[in-house]
Amino acid sequence: MAEKITPRSEDYSRWYLDVIRDAQLAESSPVRGCMVIRPYGFALWENIRDGLDRRFKATGHVNAYFPLFIPMSFMQREAEHVDGFAKECAVVTHHRLIAGPDGALVPDPEARLEEPLIVRPTSETIIGSTFSNWVQSYRDLPLLVNQWANVVRWELRTRPFLRTTEFLWQEGHTAHATEEEAVEETLRMLDVYADFAINDAAIPVVKGRKSARERFAGAVETYTIEALMGNGWALQSGTSHYLGTNFARAFDIQYLDRNNEKQYCHTTSWGVSTRMVGAAIMAHGDDQGLRLPPVIAPIQAVIVPIWRKDPERVAVMEHAERVKAALAGAGIRVKLDVRDDVSPGYKFNDWEMRGVPVRVEIGPRDVESDAVVLGRRDVPGKEGKQFGIPAGQVADAVSELLSEVQAGLLRQATEFRDSNTRRVSSYDEFRQLIDGDGGFVRVHWDGTGEDEDTIKEETKATIRCFPDGADDGEGVCFYTGRKTSQVALFGRAY
Amino acid sequence: MAEKITPRSEDYSRWYLDVIRDAQLAESSPVRGCMVIRPYGFALWENIRDGLDRRFKATGHVNAYFPLFIPMSFMQREAEHVDGFAKECAVVTHHRLIAGPDGALVPDPEARLEEPLIVRPTSETIIGSTFSNWVQSYRDLPLLVNQWANVVRWELRTRPFLRTTEFLWQEGHTAHATEEEAVEETLRMLDVYADFAINDAAIPVVKGRKSARERFAGAVETYTIEALMGNGWALQSGTSHYLGTNFARAFDIQYLDRNNEKQYCHTTSWGVSTRMVGAAIMAHGDDQGLRLPPVIAPIQAVIVPIWRKDPERVAVMEHAERVKAALAGAGIRVKLDVRDDVSPGYKFNDWEMRGVPVRVEIGPRDVESDAVVLGRRDVPGKEGKQFGIPAGQVADAVSELLSEVQAGLLRQATEFRDSNTRRVSSYDEFRQLIDGDGGFVRVHWDGTGEDEDTIKEETKATIRCFPDGADDGEGVCFYTGRKTSQVALFGRAY
Repeated sequence: MAEKITPRSEDYSRWYLDVIRDAQLAESSPVRGCMVIRPYGFALWENIRDGLDRRFKATGHVNAYFPLFIPMSFMQREAEHVDGFAKECAVVTHHRLIAGPDGALVPDPEARLEEPLIVRPTSETIIGSTFSNWVQSYRDLPLLVNQWANVVRWELRTRPFLRTTEFLWQEGHTAHATEEEAVEETLRMLDVYADFAINDAAIPVVKGRKSARERFAGAVETYTIEALMGNGWALQSGTSHYLGTNFARAFDIQYLDRNNEKQYCHTTSWGVSTRMVGAAIMAHGDDQGLRLPPVIAPIQAVIVPIWRKDPERVAVMEHAERVKAALAGAGIRVKLDVRDDVSPGYKFNDWEMRGVPVRVEIGPRDVESDAVVLGRRDVPGKEGKQFGIPAGQVADAVSELLSEVQAGLLRQATEFRDSNTRRVSSYDEFRQLIDGDGGFVRVHWDGTGEDEDTIKEETKATIRCFPDGADDGEGVCFYTGRKTSQVALFGRAY
Repeated sequence: MAEKITPRSEDYSRWYLDVIRDAQLAESSPVRGCMVIRPYGFALWENIRDGLDRRFKATGHVNAYFPLFIPMSFMQREAEHVDGFAKECAVVTHHRLIAGPDGALVPDPEARLEEPLIVRPTSETIIGSTFSNWVQSYRDLPLLVNQWANVVRWELRTRPFLRTTEFLWQEGHTAHATEEEAVEETLRMLDVYADFAINDAAIPVVKGRKSARERFAGAVETYTIEALMGNGWALQSGTSHYLGTNFARAFDIQYLDRNNEKQYCHTTSWGVSTRMVGAAIMAHGDDQGLRLPPVIAPIQAVIVPIWRKDPERVAVMEHAERVKAALAGAGIRVKLDVRDDVSPGYKFNDWEMRGVPVRVEIGPRDVESDAVVLGRRDVPGKEGKQFGIPAGQVADAVSELLSEVQAGLLRQATEFRDSNTRRVSSYDEFRQLIDGDGGFVRVHWDGTGEDEDTIKEETKATIRCFPDGADDGEGVCFYTGRKTSQVALFGRAY
């Protein structure tokens, strides 16, 4: 906290890491690619989790838990799936350690597993195998299950929250009688994700369908919510997959229909991970640090008491405790910063860095007038301040301010997204944009998968999605020059 | 559900597995020793988790998350710890799979890890290493952290919820300036566990200290809550460890005290796991199945609609929906069983098996009188029924009944524990008891660790704890014949 963080314009990547360090969200661990999620970061994740979990339950899903380990042979049953994940699997081969010749521990050669186990990178296989026991008849369908879990994908380059070897997520897995119902579910959960992102995380995501190149390994279609980060890069923030009967065939998930005939189920899966924390950091943060949407902020209002002399201290703290009780009583997540080894100015900067939406200042004069001063994180300086709020109205005033901050962050992020969504009509223009400010590039698209590969190689940009409900009429593909009505959103992505 | 479950008196172990199967709590998985926690079992765990988590937060703890993997070398730093866990560690040795000569996947020899990773069996080591970065000065203390996580211990004999290779738990880890504060924390969390067990899970646990033989690997003292199961066996249901400076020395957790001198922290750890689900099954279940304490029951009240002819159906269902809304509105976890392919009698048995505390029956006559019939799971037959409860009062009536069931289950379990806690004055008597009804055997004890080993070998009974606050005066050790005032509680245990 002593030094300023790197400005975003100077080095966005450095800024991101500085914010994570100084806001105490996470830190690297002694295990390569794995992070420690610190209490403040975890509280943020808990709020994200609760907002999603509530929505899952409201749409009829139930939570369950499946094994961390997956038999190696399971990975092989779905051909595309194994291609997608075999290269990044943590493999358990032994079940005991013993002291080696030099006294140091080694895996016990006598305790080698007959069949190695994979630490789950995702659970379609083990859950598919379980579903095959749970489904007998059409009466058992749909199965609507979700799991909150840790997963492991051995990544070469990691970045906290965005891409780590181990991460936390939820993975929904459902089985249905028909393609229609499964597709409906896939899109329903995409809507749930978008609703969460927009209304809780204040991130104006774009919903859409992935190109074949970007599909989940084993899926028929993958849908996504794409967010735009402060540096103009895109972040895939949640995906929902229609898996067809691919996993049902691989794991024999069959049901007897009303005519007593065996049918394969149509399945879906969908996931959001701790990556959402990274999205919140980069969608809202500024050069002073985090800016957290009140709905997911671990601390919604922080009270900073201000005094010079000790006699003032007692009165200020009494007043502050009363205000704290009033805010807590209104269901506001409030913290009173009682530290006496740092100055009020230090505390202002600290909580600004940590993105607390509303600050409540209480000094001796406020005690006298039985009032408080309010400040908001999203409007800096005097402009964002409200003076002389009567202490008796503080809960209402803070609640209202929290709603305003929530709306303000969404509005700012939406304006940023919209002003950074551009159209191009040629590949040259496209390259200039991508090399420059970035952002979403919305184009007519009639290229092939190979064209996508070439563009990715030459510009690092990829099709983020074919946006939901795009109705731009017929136009000319910026790359092939062919007429088409298909619209794609390109961007550089994490 | 077609067949009756095994009576407890016939085969308690079989009964336990039958209940888990028929109540749909869990099932075995394709991975040896790992279970699938089914939605109903997981909802029970979620309620246990929430009850504990609320208490942890109320006592000043914060949640965080640490890596699943632990470098092998970390295990070696605390000598007793490694002895305790090395024999049951899942070891990750590779980070990629490739197709072998026959096309089947094999761990890629090119992707062997330089240092194998252990899947955490518990996290004192990785958290100790992190704490050493978090603690600089006495101002940083105490550190009060909890983690909800999965852990893996390679067990030879497994039993769902009681002992599985992977299980879910919370592990609290705290660091303090002094021994006094750390011991206080250790005992505080033991109290928290006992409070949860007694008031939420309705299990009258005995608090106490473990003998050296039963201590956690690396602890100075281990405290425990011990529950008595329906077959007279004990179940260790939560433990809290004072770790002294053992892990602080191994992982260099030091702070500068007020005199600017470096001191080692005193640390604690404490855990409760999915084993608590097993405790709830065995502390309360009867020959009809589960009996769940309302506080942790996934479904607190189930509504069973009853009708013969279709015209009745409409009226009954309308009435049932109104009652459901009234109960849900009062914060009661309610389910309306709308299945139309099974009879009301089948539903009665099903929800009885699944341990739902209160049943609401609604038939055509109840519609006419705008009333309901209530039944309670803990009092079978007519005696437990309340007829003609006006629909307008159903929420109050059910709330009251839930409190009564909660208290009733605790009372029954306490009576069972007390009547199955016996004193003996000789080893012969002791052996007869242990071979017979089991239960807790409360004795004066002045034996050695070797004596404990002998008793365990000969009778399979162990010291469950030295009970908290035991003040039985001086007496004679049943085993050594020596005079002592130390009291021990023996029992056979899972």
